[in-house]
Amino acid sequence: MYELCLIGIGTGNPDHLTGEGARAIREADLILIPRKGEDKADLAEVRLEIIANAAGASPPEILFFDIPERHDADGYLQGVDDWHAAIAKIWQETIATAPKPKKVALLIWGDPSLYDSSLRIAARLAPKPVTRVIPGITALQALTAAHAIALNGIGAPVLVTTGRRLRESGWPNDIDTIAVMLDGQCSFQSLNMQGVDIWWGAYLGMKEQLLVSGALSDVAARIITTRAQARTDHGWIMDIYLLKKHARKGEQA
Amino acid sequence: MYELCLIGIGTGNPDHLTGEGARAIREADLILIPRKGEDKADLAEVRLEIIANAAGASPPEILFFDIPERHDADGYLQGVDDWHAAIAKIWQETIATAPKPKKVALLIWGDPSLYDSSLRIAARLAPKPVTRVIPGITALQALTAAHAIALNGIGAPVLVTTGRRLRESGWPNDIDTIAVMLDGQCSFQSLNMQGVDIWWGAYLGMKEQLLVSGALSDVAARIITTRAQARTDHGWIMDIYLLKKHARKGEQA
Repeated sequence: MYELCLIGIGTGNPDHLTGEGARAIREADLILIPRKGEDKADLAEVRLEIIANAAGASPPEILFFDIPERHDADGYLQGVDDWHAAIAKIWQETIATAPKPKKVALLIWGDPSLYDSSLRIAARLAPKPVTRVIPGITALQALTAAHAIALNGIGAPVLVTTGRRLRESGWPNDIDTIAVMLDGQCSFQSLNMQGVDIWWGAYLGMKEQLLVSGALSDVAARIITTRAQARTDHGWIMDIYLLKKHARKGEQA
Repeated sequence: MYELCLIGIGTGNPDHLTGEGARAIREADLILIPRKGEDKADLAEVRLEIIANAAGASPPEILFFDIPERHDADGYLQGVDDWHAAIAKIWQETIATAPKPKKVALLIWGDPSLYDSSLRIAARLAPKPVTRVIPGITALQALTAAHAIALNGIGAPVLVTTGRRLRESGWPNDIDTIAVMLDGQCSFQSLNMQGVDIWWGAYLGMKEQLLVSGALSDVAARIITTRAQARTDHGWIMDIYLLKKHARKGEQA
């Protein structure tokens, strides 16, 4: 029986790591690092840099694994389900090649709780390890920090959603602030842009960081172009944005 | 002209501090620490411990300030507005007593973007300083980490809201996950509890941490009692909870 520790590492800035995360890296016997292909080679690099910073002269054993492709032919949720099963199998096989580690860790981009599969994959391991979660800075916090803005209006709610949901469901009633993640399609284009402001960011916390903000109708085209160009230049992109409706008459932002 | 740095410090566990936060503490000339009265003396203690850990032998100057009371006689939003103005005045007067600091910092519980007033107070300072935000672990992440659960369902949205809003607006359509903050009244009592699970936590990340989870109808009474007792014992409480509707037929959690 081993402990599986999911360590939130923030959004690519090695300085996002918490004291708790650094300690968990030092205490691990084995760290698994994903490789998605050449596209995201720099993300493996960031993980190695974080481990080197935290563990110093005596780093834990590191094993790489390849993330399989996801197939949506049988529908989105079935595709995700099959994909989780495939990754769990790879984790298990990779861990089995190490000499009985007691503490296995994964470095999770952002925070393990937010639009991340690791907890669901961990739940499929057999025998099931003790799972420990170390919170990390999410892209949402990196976004609001970079723009120096509050997420919520005073005492007001915030919807955190995905590009797919925004396209399918539109802007919900009674909510003036929406944070959109996992959006490969600039789904803000599907909205009525009048009276909406956007704060967009990509590569948050990294030296490549890009920020655009303004009235959605003014900057939507610029965000689409900037995003496409950056994706071409780097071979990958991670971005997120916040949408706010202007305060209605008689309300405060 | 000075820089005002709002440093997210997480939820009371000094190990929640990020590398970026520790550096900002070391680089500050002056750190302002709030005192709310004897109730929350331990929160000032946590801040002093975090500063001592980060700054070591050469800590920055520290000045304390008293947070004024909030009055809601003219309505909630007007009360908040007046309160922000009063705090801005106190910050300004406190900073003026120090010998022209270049970098002033405040240690913000959780993250400066989430249900925190500091950015709005900073915007009232005159002359307006350059405001820098360092993201920190929110209570939301500390909650999901402590329970080792995902915040969102697969590709599904999450509503982050307040106790007041939950009481006033009820459970919104099309959303199965709600995170509730700033709830002094256990507002989950106002809901139809059937088919709802809750994950509750108080003093998250601290040694006093309390966790309760289960079917809302089973554990609601226990949470109310536990919360009241803990509040009496400690003189203060900070808590948060996550509500999830059971997956509907044909859906996956």
